[in-house]
This record gives sequence, C-alpha cells and structure tokens, in this order.
Amino acid sequence: MAKTDSVRRGGYSCGLEAAVDVVGGKWKPMILWALHTRTHRFGELRRHVNGISEKVLIQQLRELEADGIVHREVYREVPPRVEYSLTELGQALNTALLPLGEWGDTHMERVVARKAAATPAA
Amino acid sequence: MAKTDSVRRGGYSCGLEAAVDVVGGKWKPMILWALHTRTHRFGELRRHVNGISEKVLIQQLRELEADGIVHREVYREVPPRVEYSLTELGQALNTALLPLGEWGDTHMERVVARKAAATPAA
Repeated sequence: MAKTDSVRRGGYSCGLEAAVDVVGGKWKPMILWALHTRTHRFGELRRHVNGISEKVLIQQLRELEADGIVHREVYREVPPRVEYSLTELGQALNTALLPLGEWGDTHMERVVARKAAATPAA
Repeated sequence: MAKTDSVRRGGYSCGLEAAVDVVGGKWKPMILWALHTRTHRFGELRRHVNGISEKVLIQQLRELEADGIVHREVYREVPPRVEYSLTELGQALNTALLPLGEWGDTHMERVVARKAAATPAA
C-alpha cells in the first residue's frame, strides 16, 4: 500500500509532483523567469509576464509567497514601494527551470509548426 | 513593438513559455515521467499517474501526441493493444524536467511544511 510513505511526504509520489504543485500552471514559471535577474515592482513584473491580468498576477504572487518562493518587501515610502524577489528556495527552483527553457528555445520552431498544423486556418 | 519577432516565433516570448505551453499543467510532467523508463499501456499509465481520471488522461495523451511528445502505437491484436512511448522530442523534454524533479526531491519536506502551515487544520 505504501500509504505511510505517501502521507509522510504530504501526498506527493515523487519530487516532480511536488515541484509541479509549487510552480505548475501557465504563469508561475514566467514570473520566476522574470525575477531571476533582479527584484521587480508589481507593474514591471506585469509588463514582463506576457498577457497576465493584474488580478491573476496578484493571486500567483500570493501563492508563490506562501510557498516560500517569492519574497515581498514593502518599503514605507510615500507612496509605498513594494518589491518582489526570489528567495533562496526560489532561486534554486529557477535554476531547475533553466533546462526547460533551453528545450523550448531549441525546439520552438517545431513546437510552433505542430501547433499551427493542429489549428485549422481561420 | 517587436511584433514581427513575436509572430515568427508563434507568439512565444521565450523558450520557457513554449515549453510550459507543451508540458504545463498538473498532469503532463507526471505522464512524461512515467513514460521515461519504458512504453506503457493505457491502464498502466493511469496507475502510475497518481489520481488522474480516465477522461483527463485520454485528453492529455491526445494533446501530447498532437505536440509530437508522445507516440501512440496500435498493435492489431485481439483485443487491440495500444502502447504509449516518448518521441525523441519527448525524451529531450523529459531530460529537461529532471532538475525540476530533483528540486522537488531535495525540498519536498519544506514544501509540505509550507503547504501544511498555509492550510488551517480541519
């Protein structure tokens, strides 16, 4: 049954499942990617993440903060300045995403051609 | 504007965005993970991907096949045997997922503790 092991590990059957639970979905890898060079303010981040809405970005950042991936720093200025950065855990996660980005760079034309072939012309 | 470049690359702003478009979501990394050692029949795959429904697995496999990641081989036996395997592109994608799995293995206890702290006890 291996139930004990599964419970001990929080219900994850492998490391990839845990990683996907933290960074899965359409937007989170993009947010990490944007943050890997330097801290960003909210508006900067929104411009860097192609097509994300304000509402969704707020939600994604809250989840990443709760998971210990993103750090939110509020500077008590007038008006208040809020900056987002990667934690140490987030930096390691971003490094783990690099090969995936390289795969995409290498095979982008093939992916695009496949997607185009699967979608009937308008 | 850089619109031309964006259109040429199928609307992806970076390789990671293309990769996430192909392998993003809750299930696809798990499916690739299961297939990386050997081909699987549908039922085997379903048992290996923790918690997936039959309907969703069918849909995910169709998308992965359309994107050239998974190969579906039908053996004309009685009853017909269907086996799923990774294409060359899928193998490369799976290799690119390895560091993400390692990140999850390394930090799983921390991820689980964070998730537990964020969820109020029942």
